[in-house]
Amino acid sequence: MPKVLITTIPFADKNRQSLDLLENTGIEYLINPFNKKLTENELADLITDFDVIIAGTEPITKKVMDNATNLKMISRVGIGLDSVDLLEAKKSGITVSYTPDAPAPAVAELTIGLMLTLLRSVQLSNMEMHNGKWHRFFGRRLSEITIGIIGVGRIGRGVLQHLQGFGLPKILLNDTSQNHDLDQTSNIEWVDKDTIYQKADIVTIHTPLTTQTKNMVKKEQLLSMKEDAIIINTARGGIINEQDLYEVMKDGHLDGAAIDVFNFEPYNGKLKEIRRCILTAHMGSMSVDCRTRMEIEATEEAVRFLTNQSLESVVPEEEYAVQREGL
Amino acid sequence: MPKVLITTIPFADKNRQSLDLLENTGIEYLINPFNKKLTENELADLITDFDVIIAGTEPITKKVMDNATNLKMISRVGIGLDSVDLLEAKKSGITVSYTPDAPAPAVAELTIGLMLTLLRSVQLSNMEMHNGKWHRFFGRRLSEITIGIIGVGRIGRGVLQHLQGFGLPKILLNDTSQNHDLDQTSNIEWVDKDTIYQKADIVTIHTPLTTQTKNMVKKEQLLSMKEDAIIINTARGGIINEQDLYEVMKDGHLDGAAIDVFNFEPYNGKLKEIRRCILTAHMGSMSVDCRTRMEIEATEEAVRFLTNQSLESVVPEEEYAVQREGL
Repeated sequence: MPKVLITTIPFADKNRQSLDLLENTGIEYLINPFNKKLTENELADLITDFDVIIAGTEPITKKVMDNATNLKMISRVGIGLDSVDLLEAKKSGITVSYTPDAPAPAVAELTIGLMLTLLRSVQLSNMEMHNGKWHRFFGRRLSEITIGIIGVGRIGRGVLQHLQGFGLPKILLNDTSQNHDLDQTSNIEWVDKDTIYQKADIVTIHTPLTTQTKNMVKKEQLLSMKEDAIIINTARGGIINEQDLYEVMKDGHLDGAAIDVFNFEPYNGKLKEIRRCILTAHMGSMSVDCRTRMEIEATEEAVRFLTNQSLESVVPEEEYAVQREGL
Repeated sequence: MPKVLITTIPFADKNRQSLDLLENTGIEYLINPFNKKLTENELADLITDFDVIIAGTEPITKKVMDNATNLKMISRVGIGLDSVDLLEAKKSGITVSYTPDAPAPAVAELTIGLMLTLLRSVQLSNMEMHNGKWHRFFGRRLSEITIGIIGVGRIGRGVLQHLQGFGLPKILLNDTSQNHDLDQTSNIEWVDKDTIYQKADIVTIHTPLTTQTKNMVKKEQLLSMKEDAIIINTARGGIINEQDLYEVMKDGHLDGAAIDVFNFEPYNGKLKEIRRCILTAHMGSMSVDCRTRMEIEATEEAVRFLTNQSLESVVPEEEYAVQREGL
């Protein structure tokens, strides 16, 4: 009987459909017994005789794969592939699938919420009010400012679409290639990243984590931003250098930040000291509907693999190229 | 030389244009020396020889007007008129103007931010993360739920318009009269208030405070809402009964609330104990652009009055009717 290791947690908390599917297909499974994001070593110890992993963002490295003598397939619950050594998987004949569409609506919507919260200092007023302190913070509206979106894939486009409902904010876009199907969108301009840092009142990151985007936003970039600007990362930890963000904000630069993703998760680092930095626990995709869809899609793909049906969301060649060529 | 009392604070903090206008017209002014919302007695003591008041939401009652022997005009910075005894003003021959359009965009945008924050438990995760605790909260997306808007005037319409950018949430509307120009809007339905309480996942209030809406949402209405529903009040304190909201949430009912307006401001009451109740300091209209526009419009109207020009935003007769007939 094939065995599936489910590492991402929570799993099937709100909807049992994916577990039912495994059970009805006669597939044995184990849900991450640590109930936290696994380290490389924990995963390497655990994975030994599993055939398939339904994976979160824990590191699936050469070391892990070397220990996983039965592993034939990785089904990622989510879009990011920075945690998976795709080239090593290919060498070992391990198939990798993912769920690139499912998380996007939830991440995009959370991003808008973080923008509005930061622009109006809702989290600061809320903290003060709960301590009995009344102060009316001034804020800004989206249509009065310039918003820079770095990474205009599924999620960045979602953000762009939601923003259309807020008057006409000026929007600066950056990506490795320009999507000309967006040319009809009002008030957008394709610019280089430096222009975004310098001109945007809000910078929001929606790129994958690659060797190109790792530490993309360091002290130099942060300091080139307006003093009262806001930066948001709902993409991947490591794209904004956490230590640099801490130091820059500690020194009073930037009006606010919202960080949902971290180098090491669960996060318990120094950004906790910065009240005007909103911290959330990698919750971008955590709407019940998107999370359920991700779980079911990843499980269905694993079942297809184990029952010799054709797969529907195999990771495309360009994702391998990104890792091969360090793009 | 005519004398103007400016009671609303902050005033001209971000833009001096309104003060410049008064000074250039040779009008003497005093800005609220208490630097907080005035009580009836404080205002009555202060107002004695002023000709015009550029007013916030402090009570302008018969007692105040009886003490204001020179008062000829009230220019409200904002839309709500619950704080002004319009019938008494009319008796005393005091003109009342207001700025009904200026605050709406800022209030509507804050309301959307509060919805998204509550739906994704951003404020709870932020508090926990700042205390070193990692928990991934589940959330919901706007397009998955039903949103009830009570009061579909300038602000309620703004909320409705922003929501159009988030897929197609199902929207229930209630007002004293149905606005048929909204009939083309997708996914809306006019219903009675009880239906909104019972069916909506988010209830947001955008009515004025009148004898009809005072205590409109009491324990009975709150308990008729879904257990995991959310309620938002960015309109006026007193429309939701604060004590009832406290008791109901204390007992575990409702997933969240956001209260920006209170019976007595500055607020320092028991809702502070409820972590899943976001509290903000009457900041709905506090975007720099809207606030500036409100201040300038109210000041321009006061100057028009004092220089015998025709007025542009006199409070219309129907607002008097609301107070006369207790509508």
